[in-house]
Amino acid sequence: MKKIRMGMIGGGIGAFIGDAHRRASRICNDFELVGGVFDADYEKSRLFAEKEGISSDRCYKSVDALIKAESALPKEKRMEVISIVTPNALHYPFAKSILSAGFNVVCEKPMTITVDEAIELEKLVKKNKLTFALTHTYTGYPMVRQMRELIGKGALGTIQRIDAQYYQGWINSIIHGTGSRITGVWRLDPKHAGASSCMGDIGVHAFNLIEYTTGLEVKEVLSDLSNVKEDIKLDLDGTVLLRFGKKLKGVIRASQVCGGEENNLTIAVYGSKASIKWSQENPNFLYLLSDTEPTRIYKPAHGYNEPLAENSHTMPSGHPEGIYEALANIYKGTGKSIRGEKFDSGEFPTVHDGVRGMKFIHSVVESNKEGNIWVKV
Amino acid sequence: MKKIRMGMIGGGIGAFIGDAHRRASRICNDFELVGGVFDADYEKSRLFAEKEGISSDRCYKSVDALIKAESALPKEKRMEVISIVTPNALHYPFAKSILSAGFNVVCEKPMTITVDEAIELEKLVKKNKLTFALTHTYTGYPMVRQMRELIGKGALGTIQRIDAQYYQGWINSIIHGTGSRITGVWRLDPKHAGASSCMGDIGVHAFNLIEYTTGLEVKEVLSDLSNVKEDIKLDLDGTVLLRFGKKLKGVIRASQVCGGEENNLTIAVYGSKASIKWSQENPNFLYLLSDTEPTRIYKPAHGYNEPLAENSHTMPSGHPEGIYEALANIYKGTGKSIRGEKFDSGEFPTVHDGVRGMKFIHSVVESNKEGNIWVKV
Amino acid sequence: MKKIRMGMIGGGIGAFIGDAHRRASRICNDFELVGGVFDADYEKSRLFAEKEGISSDRCYKSVDALIKAESALPKEKRMEVISIVTPNALHYPFAKSILSAGFNVVCEKPMTITVDEAIELEKLVKKNKLTFALTHTYTGYPMVRQMRELIGKGALGTIQRIDAQYYQGWINSIIHGTGSRITGVWRLDPKHAGASSCMGDIGVHAFNLIEYTTGLEVKEVLSDLSNVKEDIKLDLDGTVLLRFGKKLKGVIRASQVCGGEENNLTIAVYGSKASIKWSQENPNFLYLLSDTEPTRIYKPAHGYNEPLAENSHTMPSGHPEGIYEALANIYKGTGKSIRGEKFDSGEFPTVHDGVRGMKFIHSVVESNKEGNIWVKV
Amino acid sequence: MKKIRMGMIGGGIGAFIGDAHRRASRICNDFELVGGVFDADYEKSRLFAEKEGISSDRCYKSVDALIKAESALPKEKRMEVISIVTPNALHYPFAKSILSAGFNVVCEKPMTITVDEAIELEKLVKKNKLTFALTHTYTGYPMVRQMRELIGKGALGTIQRIDAQYYQGWINSIIHGTGSRITGVWRLDPKHAGASSCMGDIGVHAFNLIEYTTGLEVKEVLSDLSNVKEDIKLDLDGTVLLRFGKKLKGVIRASQVCGGEENNLTIAVYGSKASIKWSQENPNFLYLLSDTEPTRIYKPAHGYNEPLAENSHTMPSGHPEGIYEALANIYKGTGKSIRGEKFDSGEFPTVHDGVRGMKFIHSVVESNKEGNIWVKV
Repeated sequence: MKKIRMGMIGGGIGAFIGDAHRRASRICNDFELVGGVFDADYEKSRLFAEKEGISSDRCYKSVDALIKAESALPKEKRMEVISIVTPNALHYPFAKSILSAGFNVVCEKPMTITVDEAIELEKLVKKNKLTFALTHTYTGYPMVRQMRELIGKGALGTIQRIDAQYYQGWINSIIHGTGSRITGVWRLDPKHAGASSCMGDIGVHAFNLIEYTTGLEVKEVLSDLSNVKEDIKLDLDGTVLLRFGKKLKGVIRASQVCGGEENNLTIAVYGSKASIKWSQENPNFLYLLSDTEPTRIYKPAHGYNEPLAENSHTMPSGHPEGIYEALANIYKGTGKSIRGEKFDSGEFPTVHDGVRGMKFIHSVVESNKEGNIWVKV
Repeated sequence: MKKIRMGMIGGGIGAFIGDAHRRASRICNDFELVGGVFDADYEKSRLFAEKEGISSDRCYKSVDALIKAESALPKEKRMEVISIVTPNALHYPFAKSILSAGFNVVCEKPMTITVDEAIELEKLVKKNKLTFALTHTYTGYPMVRQMRELIGKGALGTIQRIDAQYYQGWINSIIHGTGSRITGVWRLDPKHAGASSCMGDIGVHAFNLIEYTTGLEVKEVLSDLSNVKEDIKLDLDGTVLLRFGKKLKGVIRASQVCGGEENNLTIAVYGSKASIKWSQENPNFLYLLSDTEPTRIYKPAHGYNEPLAENSHTMPSGHPEGIYEALANIYKGTGKSIRGEKFDSGEFPTVHDGVRGMKFIHSVVESNKEGNIWVKV
Repeated sequence: MKKIRMGMIGGGIGAFIGDAHRRASRICNDFELVGGVFDADYEKSRLFAEKEGISSDRCYKSVDALIKAESALPKEKRMEVISIVTPNALHYPFAKSILSAGFNVVCEKPMTITVDEAIELEKLVKKNKLTFALTHTYTGYPMVRQMRELIGKGALGTIQRIDAQYYQGWINSIIHGTGSRITGVWRLDPKHAGASSCMGDIGVHAFNLIEYTTGLEVKEVLSDLSNVKEDIKLDLDGTVLLRFGKKLKGVIRASQVCGGEENNLTIAVYGSKASIKWSQENPNFLYLLSDTEPTRIYKPAHGYNEPLAENSHTMPSGHPEGIYEALANIYKGTGKSIRGEKFDSGEFPTVHDGVRGMKFIHSVVESNKEGNIWVKV
Repeated sequence: MKKIRMGMIGGGIGAFIGDAHRRASRICNDFELVGGVFDADYEKSRLFAEKEGISSDRCYKSVDALIKAESALPKEKRMEVISIVTPNALHYPFAKSILSAGFNVVCEKPMTITVDEAIELEKLVKKNKLTFALTHTYTGYPMVRQMRELIGKGALGTIQRIDAQYYQGWINSIIHGTGSRITGVWRLDPKHAGASSCMGDIGVHAFNLIEYTTGLEVKEVLSDLSNVKEDIKLDLDGTVLLRFGKKLKGVIRASQVCGGEENNLTIAVYGSKASIKWSQENPNFLYLLSDTEPTRIYKPAHGYNEPLAENSHTMPSGHPEGIYEALANIYKGTGKSIRGEKFDSGEFPTVHDGVRGMKFIHSVVESNKEGNIWVKV
């Protein structure tokens, strides 16, 4: 099958997340990187293109230049999708230009800085009938998808409690370091990171995982955030009480100051009949608990899984796939959408998930600012 | 060594918790059960005494009768401590009588129904210079004690977040059952259980574990509780935001409706240098996390443990001890106090822990009732 | 119910295993320690009796004296069972005398030093119609019993492979220590330990666990043992190939020189339909694997367990019991047998298991000595 | 950097292992697939090439044709390495031709059918000074490499025992199925699989992992293999006793009939000072055990790891990578060798490892056939 021609904004030499996107696109094998604006500094961008074997005439000086030139190409040569892997604050302006010009988009999260920007992008995607994939990578894991399917089939009975956690510890070494302390850590600078550090960077993943696996919407939040040290301007830690509907409650706990925690994202959904738990650092194990049966451990590559999960794993059982493959699964789904093939709504997060995420972040920040009160999402 | 003469109030035939106390007292081997009021029904009490080989003339018809008769015995025959293992609402009146008469007490939790009752007991204990042990059993586990000691030595640096969880699922089968639904479940009846089901029965254990291991006091709480079904009068589920001091925040999550969860009590204390995590269902494993070193797993019966932990385990390493041994450790510490031997403050929870627990329960219930506001503990 | 009057040989002050037996007997609450010969040194024995509150006139100077005096007592006062917890080499002579005099016996393992001795004891037990319990403690764990029952019901299909492991590391500190090296370590001295250290002390537990859980008999063994260091006279490490019948094979791996291993006894039985795995250091988790279903985790205190397992746990689910409770379960079963109550053959290991164990140890030693050849068990 | 031009023999449509190799080569991003003989059926091969976007004039009808045409190309267009991913029996003839023509090779395991063939390939590689990588994929995991480095630095003291396991269960569904039973399962056919099924396919991985991580050579083996069912011609299960030198012994256990086991490869190396354990199904956790310190868990992406391990992981800590990344690490190392860059000997298994593997398989089969005797490797 012909590969989808992909462009990239950001992700030049030394950029971690751009590299991850390229690996994922190569793993799923449905994409070919044909050009982009890999660095704000054109010279660096050009060097990167050379290193990657990308034709220098498709290494552009700006997003505008890219749009202009690619739009002028015949349809069968033109980029079909553009991945945006820049710092947060640039997602919105670039996505807006690119969508307006009729290109499909893969975008890193958080999608925008403000809710209004997110809503604007959603409208643009709808209007121009484009594919927009937001890379909430964790939704690409087979067992997260199995969780979504089991819940969708009613395996839990009535959902009675939802509890998600995202604990990291890496910011400790920065905030407790000596000397250059915050230097270079753009995540701690509101100008580049937006309204929130912890909730905006990781809390929103927990939020997305809840809505992705349960199909439910968080209606209200009450948060208590902490900046941990006086001179830090954004939240590094917090707990968010959740309300879903009449009776269902839940909680999101997120922190960047849990010393020694690496990337400890977990989700548990508790029901009247059974409950289900997943943990990102052991992603190939999914636990189904019941009061009347032994706990069951679901693993990938088994006939007992639902198709959405089974189609997200290529190795035989017991051969662990990891986070690159999760991201590749999202790219694969995105590719199906771009090609007009049939796909499951669970195959990639959309611009709507981006809107939800921005609403979550802003309502959490507002709740905390207003004295830990309930705020509608 | 001469065994301590122990009496018991409650705990007759079929009573689970009384049996646990007796086992624990036999394991540590410092106590001899010599009499008591084992059942409100004297005939049943007598049958139990007979079955246990307890002299019938020390099987009393009432607590008052017990106090009168035992007080009249010569000191070297008189009961030295009385364990109270009745339903919650009876803890206070019995403890008050017994303490007033000058007997030491072991008491099940929750210690009382109201905060005032708890404070009254605390005053009595001080005034009469008695030993009062509250059986927060989980503090008897060797690795919980090792956690306390490691934190006490400053192994974590500045504590930055505290997160405790107590999830069970057993109430599901009652609230979703058919027919006799709430019948006999006194925990769902405010008259017998007090102001709270979930927080009063298990949330308070998580609270105690936090204060026990960190030596810190929770200053304020903000809670969101749920009764899950319309006709349930007490909370079965909830989240409590915690504030300790200027910057330190935390959370307690507790539920009795997490289908399939058995007795999933966990505690994690996160610091600037390291963090520490423990889980009740694997009680012999304690995890110390650090950003710069491999995670360490502490286990009992090793020279690397602190004395309080090492003295709480009798088997060689790799021979798992369990919850009965944890309770036995509390009995052992209580025995030391009764005998006037030297003991560590970590060896048994006291009447003061009971006061703290009652304050926690009531402030949590108030916060929820008043619309999820901050309430001082 | 009247407690069973128990005597004890060995187990005086400082003796670990005697203490474990007494704790276990107190936990199950069916026994009362009334006398014994607690130490070869009468004065020490007497001190122990005093400390334990045991009447000095039943603290005997020798096993013969005990037998004589107790036999002279009226039946309703006489000891009903005698626990032998001496060093290995004394098990046989004491058990022989005691059984000959018509007393029931609980005996530590290994039961004897030679196979002939074991067979002699078995004949004595049969002839005198006595209860003889061999404390292969691990058979007392609820999940080991559940394993036995599941296999007995055919849950695995045809058994195709059996693999048991018993790894410890404690001998490293002795054999690699400086100075007093082997001093006092009677396990390394053939005179006291018998023909084997590693296989005799721990390999035999793995062997017993295999025969206990599967109901199968090991027919032949081929072993390769190691003394690790030149001057050590007994095996400290070894692997034993097993043959059960025509097609079924297995392996036992045991070692006392696996640095850092504590008491890592595991057993796995693999079948055509499903497989089952258990590990002693997490004794309350039993894993059932299948090619077509998610792995199941069995835990104690659930309606889905078989009665033999359920009756071996007293706490509610999620409240971990440990090795003392396992030993208490064996005592409880022994008590049933002594009282003439109905009991399941899985409730305690018998003198026949002792014969099997001695045959295993000796055939393993022979196989190794003869150059790693097949030897009939 | 210019990508290495890679050819492939085998791995056409529907071939699992060829797909894995291509993914791995794309992940590490050092290779470009430029042509090959993807299927014995040219038409299928051509279709595959078309699907992959490979120029049809480099889709060859035979290995000979490929060698001839590629050799005729100018050096800067010619394939630099050829991956052989055909069924086992074809590895040798193709590798021989390709190496003789001066091309570097990546080859799936087992490298050949006989030991002589393996030795011949080794000589060819040496003579022609070529790079030959054997894809023992598990050596590509970061924590396996960390294990190798820790052992190499002497972290364990004297090695005293080595225990490796490789348990799978997938063959159960074939041998116990009804009807077409062995149809199409070439692994059970000596003509295609060689002398062994279980040991040849998976036992050899365990063997390789032992020699890779310890740097030691297995000197002698004694095996007991089983075909499980009468009509199966090859071993499906077995245990292999190992001897390394004067005192060191070990064991390999492998089976394809452990129902429910997926890909349970484990290795444990026990030393006088410490021990180390790794399990393939949780590949990012490495356990270091010691008698005097808490067990340590090593994970990737930490400064405490050795360079060989750290350079084998690209994501931040806590972001699990999997088996594709392990294979990509081997490709990356192979690429370094082809380009003449500096590389560590641990970066990819070589033709010598292939010789060792063939010697292992054949000595194991011989030992079993000769009645479970010691055979030199």
